[in-house]
Amino acid sequence: MYELTLARLIDAPREKLYRAWTDPALIPLWFCPKPWGVSKAETDVRPGGASLIVMRGPDGQEFPNRGVYLEVVPNEKLVFTDAYVAAWEPSEKPFMTAILTFEDEGGKTRYTARVRHWTAEDVAQHEAMGFETGWGIATDQLEELVKDI
Amino acid sequence: MYELTLARLIDAPREKLYRAWTDPALIPLWFCPKPWGVSKAETDVRPGGASLIVMRGPDGQEFPNRGVYLEVVPNEKLVFTDAYVAAWEPSEKPFMTAILTFEDEGGKTRYTARVRHWTAEDVAQHEAMGFETGWGIATDQLEELVKDI
Repeated sequence: MYELTLARLIDAPREKLYRAWTDPALIPLWFCPKPWGVSKAETDVRPGGASLIVMRGPDGQEFPNRGVYLEVVPNEKLVFTDAYVAAWEPSEKPFMTAILTFEDEGGKTRYTARVRHWTAEDVAQHEAMGFETGWGIATDQLEELVKDI
Repeated sequence: MYELTLARLIDAPREKLYRAWTDPALIPLWFCPKPWGVSKAETDVRPGGASLIVMRGPDGQEFPNRGVYLEVVPNEKLVFTDAYVAAWEPSEKPFMTAILTFEDEGGKTRYTARVRHWTAEDVAQHEAMGFETGWGIATDQLEELVKDI
């Protein structure tokens, strides 16, 4: 399955975490580990809907990330992939599919991100690019954000 | 887009063509150019639903084809890919995405199959494997079948 996983119990309701992942006004507030930022976020949150998140590095260079939502269960589950840039236009490189789940657990939320790849090389590259640290820091920022929304 | 296309005006209502593509009892009757056949067909026709079509060669060798439906508009549109074998398990090799549309045209149906690939190599391979002939013969068989259903 070539899967990388991040799971965390977060002291916030599911609805807020889901909103932070889907509201284009909130994504820039947590999505990139600082000093990286997000200069543009667009989300069409429905199966087949496209998303665009432009990441900006500290030197101003921009990296557009395009994807398509595959499955949407509001406040429970969100699946998207970079295998398509729109419904149904293949991307330059199908790299990953992310499966996010938000579950109630003792008044908090069990937040789980499963990120699957098509090849052993891709999962190794993602790990080497710093998946654990990058998603870890982004999730710290997400946890901070949901205190305030 | 690395696309291969087959378009044909077929003298049958959209509903019958859609049924021939989705009913597991009908798929074996037209899907493979003879003397190839289909020994098993399973379809879970909804976004994220899996499909399995086992093709059988004249010598009895079997070739399972697994995929997932991405978009389903009954009697109008059907999109599926072999990039997943189930929702959302990446397949061994994301090779193609097929977009089928069924449109009314002067009492007949304009049937269009657009088959998209992720790489130039894959589209060239699919063409070399005989896309035009293979899909052409299968569509002849489809056209015959819908006269009788």
